Amino acid sequence: MTTEQTDDEYADLGATTEEAMEIAETSMDRVRSLVPDETLADRIRQKSVHATGDPEFQHLMRFTGEDDDEPVRAGARAVLDEQPIVTDITMVKAGITGRGHDCPVQKAIGNGTELAAETGMTRTAASVLELDSEGVYDGAIAVVGNAPTAALALADCIEDGTRPAAVVATPVGFVKAAESRTRLRETAATHGVPTITNVGRRGGSGLAAGLTNELVHVASDHKAGEIEL
Amino acid sequence: MTTEQTDDEYADLGATTEEAMEIAETSMDRVRSLVPDETLADRIRQKSVHATGDPEFQHLMRFTGEDDDEPVRAGARAVLDEQPIVTDITMVKAGITGRGHDCPVQKAIGNGTELAAETGMTRTAASVLELDSEGVYDGAIAVVGNAPTAALALADCIEDGTRPAAVVATPVGFVKAAESRTRLRETAATHGVPTITNVGRRGGSGLAAGLTNELVHVASDHKAGEIEL
Repeated sequence: MTTEQTDDEYADLGATTEEAMEIAETSMDRVRSLVPDETLADRIRQKSVHATGDPEFQHLMRFTGEDDDEPVRAGARAVLDEQPIVTDITMVKAGITGRGHDCPVQKAIGNGTELAAETGMTRTAASVLELDSEGVYDGAIAVVGNAPTAALALADCIEDGTRPAAVVATPVGFVKAAESRTRLRETAATHGVPTITNVGRRGGSGLAAGLTNELVHVASDHKAGEIEL
Repeated sequence: MTTEQTDDEYADLGATTEEAMEIAETSMDRVRSLVPDETLADRIRQKSVHATGDPEFQHLMRFTGEDDDEPVRAGARAVLDEQPIVTDITMVKAGITGRGHDCPVQKAIGNGTELAAETGMTRTAASVLELDSEGVYDGAIAVVGNAPTAALALADCIEDGTRPAAVVATPVGFVKAAESRTRLRETAATHGVPTITNVGRRGGSGLAAGLTNELVHVASDHKAGEIEL
């Protein structure tokens, strides 16, 4: 494998035609000129810029764990272990690459319908609690791209003993989004669950999917012998 | 129907539980305190802020047509006429609400595989050209959330005579994203196709889906006799 091909693969596992690879390469080159390229966490920072189109987004990313790289290592190891990737909503699941991994990809939404109807809680929060009661989140990569209440429910689950391998959470919006990520960071840090999140109101499904795909890319690069985990 | 229920419905057609409706309502209240609430175009500006979590995004939105409201009217009318909603990628399709409309929702990606392989163009661009050759885009709501090359292909189709009812295009990124939207705006304006786009590098699938869902909301409000189109 030449360096050029490796770079192509790194840039975007979804780019399979000549034009797409060229765009993905040029794009990541521009991102790398704007974001440091030293650590595993930097790769997540780069991806956040790539996914949002905003160079400043790198400064909004937060990492909990022994060091900033730990959630990236933990997420990539979970990919290599073929652990499930569990998203909050369909849209995030649709954004997870099908290439470069053998992890089952599952969405929470659609579960817990009765719990939502009984309690009045959001469907996504109920779906997280329902999947958690089935043990789905232990050892999994838990991804929240849309619903702050799903992030809060996930924090509850961690408090109650659930241990995802890693959490990626970037719910967006004006109500509870930033607060839900703060709570998730604090709860996860207390219980030793590594997290990748952001501060502020911004975020969303595209970002969550992009960051999760970067964990897959890191795992691929490790398999190819290019990086240590 | 009370005003409160109407507001609930407006805020988020996907919010079906008590907590979700409360969050959706509070969220849109905060957005309305940050964005004007006078015109149909303002509803799209509000939705852009809601979808991105960024109050400044309202200033990045652009509208082409007789006036800023025209693409919103045209899109909502197409929803009422049950015209197809055609997205570039799966993720955008996954973000389109299933409620409040009877439009078929279709994605381009997955079509045009041979064309992409033969020419080396991106899979999304090839898929747009392929669907266009089948006449899918005439009268449809054409949505591009991810791929600049899909937006460029759509501009080519419009130049060649295709007439979508309305275009929503917010591809994101550092290569061709802003340029593709500029070209789409100019080409569509020349040929009388109304468009909703943004300027700058930012955008994405969540934004495109949110703006398209707002067209559905506008159509719902018209059906409920609350607004003129």
